[in-house]
Amino acid sequence: MRIGILGSGLMGGKLGTIFARAGHDVVFSYARSERKLLRLAREAGLNARHGTPAEAAREADTLLVAVHWSRIGDVLKQAGTLSGKVIVTCSLPMNASDTALVVAHTSSGAEALARKAPRAKVAAAFGTVPSEVLFGVFAARRRRNRPSLLYCGDDAAAKQVAAELIRDVGFEPVDAGPLRMARYSEPFTLLIAQLAYEGDRGPELAYRFEWFGKQIR
Amino acid sequence: MRIGILGSGLMGGKLGTIFARAGHDVVFSYARSERKLLRLAREAGLNARHGTPAEAAREADTLLVAVHWSRIGDVLKQAGTLSGKVIVTCSLPMNASDTALVVAHTSSGAEALARKAPRAKVAAAFGTVPSEVLFGVFAARRRRNRPSLLYCGDDAAAKQVAAELIRDVGFEPVDAGPLRMARYSEPFTLLIAQLAYEGDRGPELAYRFEWFGKQIR
Repeated sequence: MRIGILGSGLMGGKLGTIFARAGHDVVFSYARSERKLLRLAREAGLNARHGTPAEAAREADTLLVAVHWSRIGDVLKQAGTLSGKVIVTCSLPMNASDTALVVAHTSSGAEALARKAPRAKVAAAFGTVPSEVLFGVFAARRRRNRPSLLYCGDDAAAKQVAAELIRDVGFEPVDAGPLRMARYSEPFTLLIAQLAYEGDRGPELAYRFEWFGKQIR
Repeated sequence: MRIGILGSGLMGGKLGTIFARAGHDVVFSYARSERKLLRLAREAGLNARHGTPAEAAREADTLLVAVHWSRIGDVLKQAGTLSGKVIVTCSLPMNASDTALVVAHTSSGAEALARKAPRAKVAAAFGTVPSEVLFGVFAARRRRNRPSLLYCGDDAAAKQVAAELIRDVGFEPVDAGPLRMARYSEPFTLLIAQLAYEGDRGPELAYRFEWFGKQIR
């Protein structure tokens, strides 16, 4: 897969690095400095390079949107046309001080993004875990009981891409249904953040859904 | 512990039954019919009986609030004074058609309940899993990797009670922090409901938080 990273911060930088190590072609874009993009691309190996959002978007089939919510409009403008592309978004719709959701309850960040990029195919994924756990999950990807990762969307192709990338990182994809389920998964992310950053067990936190069937009764 | 069940429906009936089997004294109250209360009490064993909400409240240290949100006002009125009692609530603030939260984002059902019962000590717990999984988790309570169960609250004593009951049912309690965290755990419950009732793996669903430390890298 050719993947453009729009927003190479904590999440975008780590996910892009893992995608590259999993064999995908990755272009990092939109970080605080070009030096950071260069460093990310160098450390992610031969499959990775860096570019502008427009370059990242032009050559990619799939775009990871991982900017702070305040940058969504700007990064989409810089990326240019995204017609027919798959967007996987992990951007939470937080306010400037990162203390509250600015879109919630009757909509979600994922739905708002889909409205801003109406010709793209949008799935939400990766937002529900802290960036700190990603390398640990990737390193443990051969283990039997993988942690779950929720994804949702209204477009089957975008969801399939999201599920594949989730598997590449080392999680078991769990289909949460249509894109509007992000109204529930985005608040869930704030719960995860509370456990990860305010709890005493550290931020390397993931979750696993378990079905208790008759087999274990 | 002496526990009054306010709302002996799917959740209250099953949790009360498990609490009684775990050795607590349980009074079931507030069901569709007295026959149902009688049957619940009989099937739950020697530690259980049935009564009115006022009787359930009077003798209990701890009350489980498990009514449909539309009944919150009525059941609290019938229960009478709850001064100094611990309330553990699993009532989700759903509309009459059970399709949407009526309290969300800037408040939560748990916080709204705490305002309605200002002299009680409120913790939220048990709301985040389907009733269908409870007996399965209880039956498997000796296993090593128990599923997690989130709880939150502003009163330390209420939280301690919630954590103890969570352990009795067979989950590992996970402290999500103050009561306002219910703003995130209640939407999470709708996500769980989507997976349980709209997914293809059935409603016996639980979740487990996992910390990826250096030990598994």
